[in-house]
Amino acid sequence: MAELLINSQAFKHNLNLISKHLSPTQSPALVLKDNAYGHGLKEMAGLARENGIESVFVKNESEALQIKNTFKHITAFYGNVSEDAPSNIYQCVQTLQTLQTISPIRGFELEVNCGMNRNGLSPQNLKEAFKIIAKRDLRLIGVFTHNGFGDEGGEEMDRQENLSKEIQAQVLELCSSLALPTPRFHFHNSSGTFRKKNIEEIVRVGIAGYGYLCSSHPLCEELKPIASLWADKICSHSLKKGEKIGYGGAGVMPCDGVVSSYDLGYGDGLFRIHEHTHGKLLCDEGEHILPRMSMDCFSTLSEKERICLFRDVRGWARFFDTIPYEILTKLSPFIKKRVL
Amino acid sequence: MAELLINSQAFKHNLNLISKHLSPTQSPALVLKDNAYGHGLKEMAGLARENGIESVFVKNESEALQIKNTFKHITAFYGNVSEDAPSNIYQCVQTLQTLQTISPIRGFELEVNCGMNRNGLSPQNLKEAFKIIAKRDLRLIGVFTHNGFGDEGGEEMDRQENLSKEIQAQVLELCSSLALPTPRFHFHNSSGTFRKKNIEEIVRVGIAGYGYLCSSHPLCEELKPIASLWADKICSHSLKKGEKIGYGGAGVMPCDGVVSSYDLGYGDGLFRIHEHTHGKLLCDEGEHILPRMSMDCFSTLSEKERICLFRDVRGWARFFDTIPYEILTKLSPFIKKRVL
Repeated sequence: MAELLINSQAFKHNLNLISKHLSPTQSPALVLKDNAYGHGLKEMAGLARENGIESVFVKNESEALQIKNTFKHITAFYGNVSEDAPSNIYQCVQTLQTLQTISPIRGFELEVNCGMNRNGLSPQNLKEAFKIIAKRDLRLIGVFTHNGFGDEGGEEMDRQENLSKEIQAQVLELCSSLALPTPRFHFHNSSGTFRKKNIEEIVRVGIAGYGYLCSSHPLCEELKPIASLWADKICSHSLKKGEKIGYGGAGVMPCDGVVSSYDLGYGDGLFRIHEHTHGKLLCDEGEHILPRMSMDCFSTLSEKERICLFRDVRGWARFFDTIPYEILTKLSPFIKKRVL
Repeated sequence: MAELLINSQAFKHNLNLISKHLSPTQSPALVLKDNAYGHGLKEMAGLARENGIESVFVKNESEALQIKNTFKHITAFYGNVSEDAPSNIYQCVQTLQTLQTISPIRGFELEVNCGMNRNGLSPQNLKEAFKIIAKRDLRLIGVFTHNGFGDEGGEEMDRQENLSKEIQAQVLELCSSLALPTPRFHFHNSSGTFRKKNIEEIVRVGIAGYGYLCSSHPLCEELKPIASLWADKICSHSLKKGEKIGYGGAGVMPCDGVVSSYDLGYGDGLFRIHEHTHGKLLCDEGEHILPRMSMDCFSTLSEKERICLFRDVRGWARFFDTIPYEILTKLSPFIKKRVL
């Protein structure tokens, strides 16, 4: 049965690299959203806990509930959190309307738009927001922004970073004037963290924990991808040169030989290779995935009982003109995970 | 919260269209594999049962166990089935080795290669297989083939169909000579079914049940897609012409207006739209999904509280140079389903 193997030592190595950018009293918070970027929410939560992580970020309440006993602080980025959810699960608030309706007992983090113009409250509405927070006696845990230029760096990143700092200053002032407790702040994702030193605030480490970074920072090369994907053989056929394989006979034997089918396909989240795909997609040891990939299997000229699809998805990401995140998050949550 | 809405009347309509090709005593078997092609295994199993379906096909034991009480016959296409699994769950066998090891109490279906050269026993090994079945007193439920040219039709399809019939004849002869009970046979998938009339054998209806078919058969136009995908607004921003949105500022406001983020992204299984993607990907009512799509949300120039991404995925399939199956099976199983 196909498996995603997780290298716990590589994960530890990545966390150590990240921690070097934080002040000695700070430890990173891990982003576990989208099934831990496809790596398995429960498996990665267990590893994170073993490595001393106390704060995590997940996609929504459903993910939060799966790991409710594992962390001190669990923030669900999207959607509402139910009244009866444990108190260590925090909701994210992006609008004034939500501030008017959220339960006063639910801890929450306020997202503020620092220029990415995607999610978050407009900074102009901060004063109004804190009036509501004070009036309704809401349980504000944190305030955060998300820099849309962490990977690219440059002027735009600096502009969003500066705006984040202004937001922080304004929040501190508002809390002081309204006699509210000071929330935590977090601005930096993986890329942002690597660009800084001695960071005092909590940082949200996502993709770097899993061994990747989509920026040109020299530290990227020191990160170690933690997941390798493996498929098992279903069966083999001895075929003659020219014999056809798969739907529409799109795969053709280049010589006499043995072709085998393996138990992963596009229904497991792989991109569907077909005869119009440019180039040859190769497995980790060079086996060519023949077009057309099926929903539950692919064929290749190999007799191996088990084949490694990748140990590092960057090659596949380049092949499909995308980023490692997409290859990883698309992996079916039903692929078995094993931590080594 | 984003939802996949399932139209139960459209599903019934598709089943009726399919049933017209079967002999009056036969009812279709439904393929529910890969989370019912992304539509939700449990939801579609419930609908299938309501429509009188008794035999289904799933990906593996894990899927089979989720619907173990819903059907008389559940065949798991891939992997082994545990000793203690209920007896209505059948394993598929593709090799002589598995015949040597499978438990005599486990019902199984034998897949035979009719020329697709993907999965299944070679027809040359049928005699040997039946010797093992007789000797080990194995519980053979069915024998099946899979035609690799169902969509394309033509000579190759006929050749694989003829080989399937030869396999059936040979199996009948072997059962007779070895005094084994006659198994069921199934050869036809959705495309194959639409090409025939008054089919006596069980047929494995997959994609057609969900409203699609990747062939040029005129009946394709009569099928009705059963799923529509909906996302809910996270928040809105009033922006000026030229202001940037999302990662790398890749989305740019074409005019003054309101941009909103919606709660589906490539981490939910959508293909990641970015600035190098050719063309504009549109939602069902024409809203342009701005590059770059995020992992958990996308942005578009709309203020709607809820937006329909698609009611028919064929447009998206063409856009991404793939087939409806891939768009559908990649939808995260965690997207909420609602049957209407």
